[in-house]
Parts: sequence; C-alpha cells; structure tokens
Amino acid sequence: MKKVLITLLMFHLTFASACAAAETVSVADFGVHPNSRRNAVAGVQKALEACRRAENALLVFPKGRYDFWPQHAREKVYYESNSYDNNPKTCAILIENFKGLTIDCSNSEFVFHGRMQPFTVERCERVTIRNVTIDWDIPLTAQGEVVETGDDYIDLRINTFESPYVIEDGKIAFVGEGWKSRWWGSIEFEAQTHLIPPGGGDGCMRGNRDYRAEELKRGLVRLHNATGRKPARGNFLVMRHSSRDHAGIFLLHSKDLVLRNIDMFHCGGLGVLAQFSENVHLDRCHVRPNPAKGRYLSGHDDGAQISNCRGMVRIENCEFAALMDDPINVHGTSVRIIRKTASNQLLCRFMHSMSAGMQWGRKGDNIAFIENENMHTFAHGTVHAFRLLSTTDFELTLDAPVPEGLEEGDAIENLTWSPDVEIRNCKFGSCRARGLLVTTPGRVVIEGNVFESSGSAILISGDANGWYESGAVRDMLIRGNTFKAPCMTNMYQFCDGIISIFPIIPAPEKAPEPFHRNIRIEENVFHAFDYPVLYAKSVKGLTFSNNHIVRSTRYQPYHRRKHMLNLEYCQHVKVVANRLEGDVLGRDVHIERMETTEVTVAPGQGISGP
Amino acid sequence: MKKVLITLLMFHLTFASACAAAETVSVADFGVHPNSRRNAVAGVQKALEACRRAENALLVFPKGRYDFWPQHAREKVYYESNSYDNNPKTCAILIENFKGLTIDCSNSEFVFHGRMQPFTVERCERVTIRNVTIDWDIPLTAQGEVVETGDDYIDLRINTFESPYVIEDGKIAFVGEGWKSRWWGSIEFEAQTHLIPPGGGDGCMRGNRDYRAEELKRGLVRLHNATGRKPARGNFLVMRHSSRDHAGIFLLHSKDLVLRNIDMFHCGGLGVLAQFSENVHLDRCHVRPNPAKGRYLSGHDDGAQISNCRGMVRIENCEFAALMDDPINVHGTSVRIIRKTASNQLLCRFMHSMSAGMQWGRKGDNIAFIENENMHTFAHGTVHAFRLLSTTDFELTLDAPVPEGLEEGDAIENLTWSPDVEIRNCKFGSCRARGLLVTTPGRVVIEGNVFESSGSAILISGDANGWYESGAVRDMLIRGNTFKAPCMTNMYQFCDGIISIFPIIPAPEKAPEPFHRNIRIEENVFHAFDYPVLYAKSVKGLTFSNNHIVRSTRYQPYHRRKHMLNLEYCQHVKVVANRLEGDVLGRDVHIERMETTEVTVAPGQGISGP
Repeated sequence: MKKVLITLLMFHLTFASACAAAETVSVADFGVHPNSRRNAVAGVQKALEACRRAENALLVFPKGRYDFWPQHAREKVYYESNSYDNNPKTCAILIENFKGLTIDCSNSEFVFHGRMQPFTVERCERVTIRNVTIDWDIPLTAQGEVVETGDDYIDLRINTFESPYVIEDGKIAFVGEGWKSRWWGSIEFEAQTHLIPPGGGDGCMRGNRDYRAEELKRGLVRLHNATGRKPARGNFLVMRHSSRDHAGIFLLHSKDLVLRNIDMFHCGGLGVLAQFSENVHLDRCHVRPNPAKGRYLSGHDDGAQISNCRGMVRIENCEFAALMDDPINVHGTSVRIIRKTASNQLLCRFMHSMSAGMQWGRKGDNIAFIENENMHTFAHGTVHAFRLLSTTDFELTLDAPVPEGLEEGDAIENLTWSPDVEIRNCKFGSCRARGLLVTTPGRVVIEGNVFESSGSAILISGDANGWYESGAVRDMLIRGNTFKAPCMTNMYQFCDGIISIFPIIPAPEKAPEPFHRNIRIEENVFHAFDYPVLYAKSVKGLTFSNNHIVRSTRYQPYHRRKHMLNLEYCQHVKVVANRLEGDVLGRDVHIERMETTEVTVAPGQGISGP
Repeated sequence: MKKVLITLLMFHLTFASACAAAETVSVADFGVHPNSRRNAVAGVQKALEACRRAENALLVFPKGRYDFWPQHAREKVYYESNSYDNNPKTCAILIENFKGLTIDCSNSEFVFHGRMQPFTVERCERVTIRNVTIDWDIPLTAQGEVVETGDDYIDLRINTFESPYVIEDGKIAFVGEGWKSRWWGSIEFEAQTHLIPPGGGDGCMRGNRDYRAEELKRGLVRLHNATGRKPARGNFLVMRHSSRDHAGIFLLHSKDLVLRNIDMFHCGGLGVLAQFSENVHLDRCHVRPNPAKGRYLSGHDDGAQISNCRGMVRIENCEFAALMDDPINVHGTSVRIIRKTASNQLLCRFMHSMSAGMQWGRKGDNIAFIENENMHTFAHGTVHAFRLLSTTDFELTLDAPVPEGLEEGDAIENLTWSPDVEIRNCKFGSCRARGLLVTTPGRVVIEGNVFESSGSAILISGDANGWYESGAVRDMLIRGNTFKAPCMTNMYQFCDGIISIFPIIPAPEKAPEPFHRNIRIEENVFHAFDYPVLYAKSVKGLTFSNNHIVRSTRYQPYHRRKHMLNLEYCQHVKVVANRLEGDVLGRDVHIERMETTEVTVAPGQGISGP
C-alpha cells in the first residue's frame, strides 16, 4: 500500500513537473490580438519576457493576422552570412538567451512592414517555432506582368498596392515602408507553370538597360528604348531592387532548433539563415510565393543558408520556389591569412563583403590550413583565442606554433563548424541559380527530393578564392532524387551539369590529391533535355550507379558541354548499372586531365567510356 | 575719426552677432534627404540636437518629400485638450526646450505614417515653423464616393490605396499603418462645391446604421439594408472611424510661436492645438483637403484649438475646410470644485474626459469662482500651488482662504490664461459643426473673414456644466466679415443663428447680470437664407450696426427660430444702421425673458422692434 502511494505520489510529481515544464503563455494576455492590425512588436516582447520566467514555455498566438512594424523593434548589429552589412538589423521578434521555448503561431499570418527580420534566435537552446506564414503587404522585391512588347518597348503591369513605384530620371524606383530602391535586375517566370523559361534567368532583360519608363496609366508602365531581349507576353518579371539585408529567420550561436510548418512567402534576404549553430531541423519550412496574393516572387535570395553550423542539419519536406538565389546552401566560411603576427598568431581576413564580421572561431575549434593554389589541406591546428579587429579582420591565436610552409594568401577553414546534413523529400522549384549547394566534410544524405531548378540542381563547390565558401566533401550520398526537365534550362555560375561538382582550384594539377571525396550518386531519375547530367571536378571516389536517365524533349539543348558525364581531375570513378531511356544525349563519359584508368564504366548500360 | 571707427566697429559687431544669431543647420547633414522615402525621424532628431548648440538656429529642409514613421519617434505622455487620452503620443518632430529656433521646410511635403503627432513644441520660446505641407498617404479618416443608391442600398467607391478596409461582421473597418477602426460617422460633401449640403451634416446617414456591407469588387462596397436617408449620388462621404488622438501641431507651455505658410492636409485630431502657451501667431496656416489627391477629407477634428493660452493669439489668412469639427475654438477650461480640503485648499476636477490631466494652474495665476447655476463670478483668488492628483483631479492651494459661500459644484476658471484674440482674413469653409468659437475675457477682434460654415458661423458659448469651456466675453468686435449662404444649412449643438451667442447657464434668471459683455457686430454682410441671423443670450452691451443682410434663396429655410435677431436675457442692445436687401426673412428683433427697454432698434432699417 505504501509502495502504491509512493508510486502515485511520484507519478503526481512527475505529472506536475511535466505541467510546469510546458507553461503556456498567450500573446493575448499582453495586448496582442489577431486581426487588430496594431503593431504586435511591443506586446510580443512582453510575452517573451513572461516566457523567460517559465521553464520550457509554450508561447501561443491565437490564430489570425498579426502585423509587425519597426516601431519598438529591437535594433541589433548582426553580421549575417551572405547578407549586406546594413546594420543595425531591425528585429521584429527577438528570442535571446532562452533555454527551452516553443512558439506556436496556430497557423497565423504574420505580416511585416519595411525592412526587418521576422525572427531572430540568438544564444538559445531548444527553441521551436511552428505553424506560421510570413509575408509582407509591400514586399521588398516587386513583380510586373508583361502585357505587351514591341520592337523597342515593353509594357509592364505593376500592382501598385503591393509595389508602389515612382519614376525618376526615366527609371522605375519602388517605394515602400521606409525605403526607395531602383529596379536593377529581373528573372522571368512563366504565367502558368511559375517556371523560369530558357533565357528567363540572369540576363533575361539583356539589352534593355537603357530603358526610359513612361507611366501610361497608374500601374501600367512602358519601357521605351527596350531594344534587347523581350520576355514573353503574359509572363511575369520578378523585379529585383533592394539589397539582401535581413534574413527571414536568423539563428545565431544557438543549439537544438526546430522550424516546423512555416510558409515564408517573402523576406528581405536569406529565408532561413543558421550561423554558428548546432542541430538545426527544418520540417515543412517552405519559401515559396503566396498563392493567395497571385505572387510570382517569394523569398528575396537563398531559401536556407546553413553557414558554419555543426551537429546535424536536417531539412525535410520543404518546398522552395521563385527564389532569387539558391534554395539551400550549406557551407563554411574560409578566411585568408594576411600574415603571421607571432609564432602562434595570425592576422586573418574575411574575403567576401557579404560574409564578414562573424565570431569565426572559439577556443578549442579545430582548423585546417589550406594551400591557396591547389586547395590542399596541409596542416591542422587548434584555436586558443579569437579576437575580431574590424568587420573584415581578426586575430587568431593557436594552441601551437603555426605550421611550417604557411604563406600569405593561404586559407583556413573551421572544421569544428561542419555539420552532418540530411536533406529529404524537399521540392526545389524554379528559382534563380542552382538548387542545392552543399560543401561540408560532414556526412551528407540528399534523398528523395524533386528538383526543377533553373540551373544545376546540385552544386558541390568549395573555394578559398572567390566566395570563400568552404568545406571539402568527405561522405555524400545523393539517392532516389528526381531531377525534372527544367533543371539546367538557364546558365548561372558553376552550372556544368544537372549535378555539378565544381570546386574552385586555381592549380588543380599541383594538388597531391582531389579536393572532394566519396560521393555516391545512386538510384536517381534524371529527365535530361541536354548533354551534361554530371560534371565532377577533383573528386576521389565517385560512384554513379543505378540511376535512370530519361531524355526530355521539353527544351532545346544548348550547353557547351556535349557529354553526359564529364570528369576532370577525378580518381576512382565508377559508372555502374545505370539505365538510359529515350534518345539520351551523349550517352558517354568524358574525361579531362585525368587517367582513363581512374574510370570504370560497367558494360550494358549503353554508356561509352572515355 | 575715432567716433567713426567705433561706430563701424559697433556696426561690425552687431552684424557679426546678427550672423551668429542665424546659424543654419540642414537636415541633409544628418542623413535626411528629400524624396528618399526613408524614415526621417532619427535624422531630424540629430539635426535638432545640432540646432541646440547654436543660437537662434535656422533648421532647413531642402525642398522635397519627407516621410515620417513611428520608428525612433519619441513617445511622450501628453494630456491634450479636447483629445483622447491614448497615451503615450508618438512625436514625429519633438521641439523641446528651445529658445530661438526657426524651422524652414522650403515648401516640402511631409508625409506621416500611422497615428502620430507631426510637430510638438514644448517649453520653448521664439519658435517658428514655416513652409510645409503635412499629409498622410493613408489618412486617419476615410472617404467614399456615392456611386449608386437604391431603396435599401448605397454603393460606395473607396480608394483602397489611401483607405484600405476590411469587412468584418458585415461592417466596414478601415485598416492602416498600425491601426484598424470601424466606420462610425459620416458627413456628406458635394462633389463640385465641397460644401456640406443641407442634411449632409450630422445624421446624414440616419437610418442606415444597420447596414450590411458587401464588397462588389475591390474598392466598391454595397451597403445593404440602408433604408434610411440617402446621400446624393456623386457626392462624397467623409467616413469617420478613428479617435482624435494626436494634434497636427501641438504647442505646449511655450511662448512666442509662429506657424506660417503651412498646409495641413490631414492630421489625427485637432489641427493646431496651443495649450497653456503665450503669443501664438498663425499666418497662412491652412487645414483643408489636399487637392492633388482628390480628397474631400482634411483635418480630423477642429482646425485650431487655442486652449488656456494668454498674450496675443493672432490667426490671419488661414483657410479651413472639410474639417470634422469647428475650424477655430478659443477657450479656457473651467473645472469643478469637488470640496474644500483646507481653509485655503480645494480639490478640483476636470469634468470633460477629453480635457483633463493638464497643468491647469501655477503660482500667481488669477482665478475666478463661478456660481454653477447662474454662471456668475462671485469671487477671485490667486493660486499658491497646484498639484495634480490624477488625470482628473487636482489640489489647488490659494494665497488666501477660499471665498465665503463657495459650494461644491461651483466652478473655477483661470483668468491669467485668457488671451487677446485677432482673427483676420480667414476663410471658414464648409466643415462639420460651427465656424469660429471664441470664449475669452481678452480683447477679441474678428475681422474681414469669410464664412461658409455648415452650422453657425460664430458661436460664443462659455460653460461650466457640459464642455467646461470657459471664458466670458468682455470685449469683442465682429467687423467686416462675410457670412455666405451655406452658413446654418445644418443643425449642430448651439446653432441658433449665423452668429450664436449661447452660454450655458442653467438658471439665467438667478444671475445678477448677463454672462457676456460688450459685443459689437458691425459692417458685416450676411447672405441669409433662413430667419435667425443672430441669437444672443445673456449679453450686456450688444451692438448690431451697419450690417448688410442679403436674402439668399439658395437653400430652403427650416430653422425653428422664425425671427431675424433673437435676444434672451440681454441688456443694452442696439440695432442701428443696418441695411436689408431682398426678401430677408423675419426682419425683426425678438426678445425672450428680458425687458423691451433693453433694446434700441433705430428706425429706417426695415427692422421691427420687439
């Protein structure tokens, strides 16, 4: 009997503690009500402070529309990877120093106004954000319908509710809530399919730069002197004008983060940016146009950028479409060594203006020294101290003397901040540029995804010379994905195959061994309308097996590469058990600057060897 | 020679000092640029701080459009006369503790966003603001064009750019930059004349309150179940929805203020509110609709409210139109005595929720005790100390014991804060309610103005029972004004004549003498379509002379008063040398509750005496 009582008591305590562990706070108790159209910022700040007093709080937004204006928003200086330094950033919802917090938005509609960052999660652990749509009434990108074209003019219809504009000096400048910015770039989308047609990518308005805008009537603008390429009548131009300055959701110096069931219809820069964070899980976290608003534009730039993270990054069931840059980019940031300032000390520099000012290293981090020309890792080290000197420069002190042979211009990457990555069941719709970029030495699985990318579906780069996006691949499985015909319909940087493995190595011939390693491409379906299905440079251990390549005749081939599988500086390549269907172009393996013996092409596939 | 040199030197010094006295600061040096569409608030704050370091600074805005959002705006608690207590107020441009400052906006267009107060001047001396237009892209009042009406419906066209709306529970709610508010009141304006037609004032939508809105298409709303009065097709309804919460220009505890060449096309409450300030000069300071935007709406409520000021208030060359309340209202605020708390101490209360919380008295102020029922001033006193206890209550300590016979419910007014007033050459266009309200014991001249008021052109009230707007008139000259036919086409509170002298005296028969004194109405032209040209209650010394009354047939007479000059409880009235033209109605003097001998009607005017 006593035992039963104790058990009951323990159960009761456990239950009570479980209850305490999920204390619910509603924003409604802090004056924030759905559909009120009032600025929710200050009330949400108060609600978050109340959550701070609870353990593992659940913050609830009753379902409805919430509006966020910059008034009362915290402004903080953040150096966000692959974004412009327009500091301070305006943080609509700032979640800082929380351990255990769930924000459930009940499928509410969050509408933002002006240049701001919807969610910022800094120095947190165990934070979940779920069930919300993120959008702007007046987005930071515009769109225009092509209603008419002539030899030297293009007429665009612009929704002046969502994209008010002015014409200044004959040029269109969009004006919004606290900003004005001139139209400078375009991507063309087909009206029905929302795909970027061939030629509709970068350069789709080539030859029209000297246009002179005339307002025929409010919302209808004629571009005179547009003698260049014409977008198709009825199609839509996404009209880029502003800078990438705020992420949609920024995760910084945090751990164990979940973003679930989020529709980010728009944002002012990268959709989700996780930076120097650990264990990030995106599930049904979409960045795509808002169908209710007839939009062709969606996120402003990349969909999800995973920059210098570690632990496990899992991206599942997400859809990306109509982005103005790559849907997913997982990478580290390599930096340049300027000079040795002491026996164990280096002056280093961030080399890309959009990836600078970051807290790049911390005591104990494992770093690799990379020879600049051949991209070879020639030594490792351990960080003792990191000190930022400016937004571009920092001083790095090591546990031991810097390695022999180090030269100015060599690079370092931080291996500690290299995640394992699983990307499953995602849809990579038609976006500017490529589909998925991954450069990390962690274990990578890319499985069961569908690609309709405008450029390459998957790009494996890695460089210490241009973008300084680091991470040599060590273990990557690309399996069971479908690459649909739109893949590679347009050319962007490094797009040399539906899968393009394209590290930037100034002198690959000097490298003692290939840069990437152990990449298996298995059981995928490629709907290829053009020759290059695969381009791979500097890979040791590359398997292309059990894939199904189907010829698509939906588009005209145009690529300068006239081979199906293109290899360069690779070792240990196997092409096995693939199946070709239809008039697949090339049906061959082409090699450059490598030995024929490095390639095994199994017979019976209908693929000719090098 | 020496003398010449000294003179030259002195001239030079004087000149140099004059130069120093006008140091120019440009907002452009603080990152505020015209037409940038960026929020000017923070930059203007910095520019003002720079002005603080100069003597008599001139702050210049290069000509163009400037936008102001609430972000970075100072928020301050202000109890603004005749406004709602929605504190804190959001102050776009806050000018605080300046002695000598001129802001020249170079005829720029200032555009505000959301509920905010464009200019706030607090505890300043010698401040001039000039050459600016003030407007909102999304105003805080809406308008709708009546495009069709039927027996039980009204179709309204609403410009959804400037007045976005939602329909909730069948009702129209306007949504703006940080607010949503439901339509609750209307005034009808003629499309061509911008006049309020007869019946178009308060109650113009009588019988339609139970409407059910249906959006026929975006921007076109049918009000079903609108079985009441129908506004005329083609006319515009100004649709009131929000509260009067921020003035356009708020002048508080300041001195020697000039507002010149300002077009206030809109604001969120009273246009100009001067409160406990001294010497205020408005010259070409208009509150009227923005013609460039096709607007029928203008300011939100009163045009200029002069509340508890002193010194000279001069309002010249100003135009008021399409306001939702009186163009000008000059008054004090009387308060109720709750009880005597010590021999020389009183607990007092602000009695109107919209005029409360003010710093009502200061040491040395001369106050008058008013018997509540007959409004008779029965004693005077001097303030020793004032202490606010809450927004409604304050403790007043006097230099001497409180007077004998004082009773709870009696009132006090502050005579020290009673200005002289000159209102010249102004145009009082068609607005809701009356034209000019003045109640002050100071010297008043109302000269050379044109009135097209919807209700009474001039209302002289004064009460300590309802609005608690105090100030018995002692010396008023109304000369050379033109009262056009639209005057008195609609009924509003206290509208008993084109000039209506209507103090609120619960028991006038108990008053030892009339409330107002010495009012001369001379050399004016009245275009009267109805009987009551003048209604005067409780005036001692009233002259109506050399006026020209012309019968207008533009509107149908309707007023319940069927006499031309209506007198009640008046003494020493003279009606002399007036000229009647056309079929002027009434042509008589009618008296009530007073002696015939108190009125002299000179012969030869065609006006019959009482």
